[in-house]
Amino acid sequence: MDEKLKEQNYVEELIEIIRSTKSNEELRDKLSDYHENDIADAFVRLDEEERKRLYPILGAEQVAEIFTYIDDPDLYLNELDLDKAARVISYMDSDDAVDVLDELDDSKQAQLVELLDEESSHDIKMIQSYEDDEIGSKMTTNFIVIKNDLTIRQAMRELIRQAGENDNILTVYVTDEAGKFYGAIDLKDLIIARENNALEDIISTSYPYLRDHEQISECIERMKDYAEDSIPVLDENDEILGVITSQDIVEVVDDEMGDDYAKLAGLTAEEDLQETLVESMKKRLPWLIILLVLGMGVSSVVGIFETVVAVIPIVMCFQSLILDMAGNVGTQSLAVTIRVLVDENLTSKQKRHLVGKEMRVGFMNGLFLGILAFSFIGLYVWLLKNNPVSHAFIISGCVGLALMIAMVISSLVGTLIPMLFHKIKIDPAVASGPLITTINDLVAVVTYYGLVWLLLIDVLHFA
Amino acid sequence: MDEKLKEQNYVEELIEIIRSTKSNEELRDKLSDYHENDIADAFVRLDEEERKRLYPILGAEQVAEIFTYIDDPDLYLNELDLDKAARVISYMDSDDAVDVLDELDDSKQAQLVELLDEESSHDIKMIQSYEDDEIGSKMTTNFIVIKNDLTIRQAMRELIRQAGENDNILTVYVTDEAGKFYGAIDLKDLIIARENNALEDIISTSYPYLRDHEQISECIERMKDYAEDSIPVLDENDEILGVITSQDIVEVVDDEMGDDYAKLAGLTAEEDLQETLVESMKKRLPWLIILLVLGMGVSSVVGIFETVVAVIPIVMCFQSLILDMAGNVGTQSLAVTIRVLVDENLTSKQKRHLVGKEMRVGFMNGLFLGILAFSFIGLYVWLLKNNPVSHAFIISGCVGLALMIAMVISSLVGTLIPMLFHKIKIDPAVASGPLITTINDLVAVVTYYGLVWLLLIDVLHFA
Repeated sequence: MDEKLKEQNYVEELIEIIRSTKSNEELRDKLSDYHENDIADAFVRLDEEERKRLYPILGAEQVAEIFTYIDDPDLYLNELDLDKAARVISYMDSDDAVDVLDELDDSKQAQLVELLDEESSHDIKMIQSYEDDEIGSKMTTNFIVIKNDLTIRQAMRELIRQAGENDNILTVYVTDEAGKFYGAIDLKDLIIARENNALEDIISTSYPYLRDHEQISECIERMKDYAEDSIPVLDENDEILGVITSQDIVEVVDDEMGDDYAKLAGLTAEEDLQETLVESMKKRLPWLIILLVLGMGVSSVVGIFETVVAVIPIVMCFQSLILDMAGNVGTQSLAVTIRVLVDENLTSKQKRHLVGKEMRVGFMNGLFLGILAFSFIGLYVWLLKNNPVSHAFIISGCVGLALMIAMVISSLVGTLIPMLFHKIKIDPAVASGPLITTINDLVAVVTYYGLVWLLLIDVLHFA
Repeated sequence: MDEKLKEQNYVEELIEIIRSTKSNEELRDKLSDYHENDIADAFVRLDEEERKRLYPILGAEQVAEIFTYIDDPDLYLNELDLDKAARVISYMDSDDAVDVLDELDDSKQAQLVELLDEESSHDIKMIQSYEDDEIGSKMTTNFIVIKNDLTIRQAMRELIRQAGENDNILTVYVTDEAGKFYGAIDLKDLIIARENNALEDIISTSYPYLRDHEQISECIERMKDYAEDSIPVLDENDEILGVITSQDIVEVVDDEMGDDYAKLAGLTAEEDLQETLVESMKKRLPWLIILLVLGMGVSSVVGIFETVVAVIPIVMCFQSLILDMAGNVGTQSLAVTIRVLVDENLTSKQKRHLVGKEMRVGFMNGLFLGILAFSFIGLYVWLLKNNPVSHAFIISGCVGLALMIAMVISSLVGTLIPMLFHKIKIDPAVASGPLITTINDLVAVVTYYGLVWLLLIDVLHFA
């Protein structure tokens, strides 16, 4: 708690410094002691006049860096003249620049891109050319690249030269004479290398890379594996187009997990606080409509058992219990299966193992809960609903047995359906939920009322 | 796809190289071209004899790095003599070393720690002293620290000296004469600084930091914000104990999101493929038992409406529909609310805004789906179930109206309950699910059968 207070204080401190310091020179000096993320937090709490005083003091490069830490930098970009805004954008990492530009209206975007220097505008157009789910859309063009025929000393000098403009320096990329990707050097190795070493000795020539058109979801596990390093992105000619930095990886992991999370909850995408009513409705209605339609299907199946309920109304009390439990078990299996599918490329043996395990877990849990339900519901129907003890425990036996069967089948369905969708290349996180709910509802209803019909009406002639 | 093939090939390539290269010298040279993550992937596919040949060739430092990329390094650590294993562990980042040691049995762990050099054993004991949810348990002691009274040249020399042992070099930490945290230097700034600059000019003295006993969940958003840099972890005397690297942040973000995901699915923690039946049951049963008990509560409320169903059995067909929809809407609101609570510190105004928005979304979606249900269910009951048209649409009117009311209330419950738990400092992701399901089931059942009772039996005397 006290830490939070202190962290807060950097922002308070900054606001006070900005408001009280008269000399621009002194203010620039003081600000340089703070992390851009903290300056960004202070920035959004200033008024427009105060920010406008800050822009020239900070300079385009630092403003660019501060903007990458702000949620909606487009709001503040509008406080700058067009050509100043263009300069700020040209200093941003190209993927961040694209994110900002996408928030602006089309005419302003076009005007700004017009004003950018050639290199920035080329980079931005390149990144905009990728689909959102391709790795190319996440890369930055801010990296260091040297030729493979340099000496250690030349490489160091080249690093120092390029470091002024490119701040992803932890890995230095190397190309061959044809400009193709040749390998990578860990900056640490370059720093501790002796001048008479050969550069070749510190180059990893079999360095991992990604292809620009790869799907993000396909390579996210690999990126997580290499998380400490940046990874180069190559085109089909093996030329380096950009790199994925650790910051990008954090973002991608966060996005992907957020997406899976949202889909499990029946949202088409993650939502946040700022969204409008219509946007939220759009994200929620699709799944709800599908569920309503499927739910009507379930209702018409329940309709078949109308006569059972008409004869023994008490059995309908436990319908919700069995359906809820089957639904929960199905969701558990679904969630486990989806994370496993995302994390690993399963062999068919592993798949059989997973299905087998899910069914065993479903059976054991079902057995346990079925016995619980049998005992307690039997007591309830006997003592509180004033039924003969034999009737009570036959009814609760049906509930317990149906619960167990429904839980085994729900586990199976919750595992097989996402695997099936995964196999036919449909995102299992989106498609599985409604289908599993519906199938499990049907299974639970048919098992339960079927058992009641068979045992109580057909065999024991309760009616 | 072709990329995947190629990536796979690094591992295949490595296995072939390891199996075919006779000279140790040549093998060492070839392996140095590959990323440790790829060597790790090849490593687990070799047999024990092949690995035992590799250990001395790679040396303890590289084996340590490879082990950090392997899922269960403890399995391979057992292939080494005790003192070799101790050397490998002493080269690992201290947080990774702790993870490995935790997997070993207690006696082996004690033997190994005994053999470690003083520094490693001190670091490991320190990290083990933190709870799993404290940030101290995630930090590494592998970082570079210099005094604030050095010149640029001395600082550079010190960096080169320390870089041999510590590879988190992107941020250089600075302490004052008393050894307290003074600030941080971006390596890039040190590299491009001129020799006659003052070191003070490139030190950020108001650099962000974490406290060793902070809860991970409390500072995860801050870490994400600073993701590109490492963040120092200080004790209460302002001394640097360790740093959180970007790799650690990726891990922490992944863990936290995985946890939220698992909890939304009714699991007490994330599961993976390797888990035993008993472990899986343990993660799933707690929530299922709670739900069973709560579900019995719902059943006894449904029991109150037994007479309604006895009189008009057809109404029970649509119970599952209304309960399912209410449940889904509640889950949507819950998921949105939890992510918002995790991401931001809400003011009470924002909280009111969120509740208001959720209710409006619930109302609009409910209105839309209610009208759909009214129309289609009316047609179904009229045409397929052979009821008089007026009866049919009165019944479907009850379904539609109940659906709408249940959806508004479910949205409200799905938002308020997690907020409430958050306020009283109980993890809303764990506690909210079962409670919301139960309340929403109750609301839906009472609304629906209540409406039917009121309208059809009391007012219109259907019976």
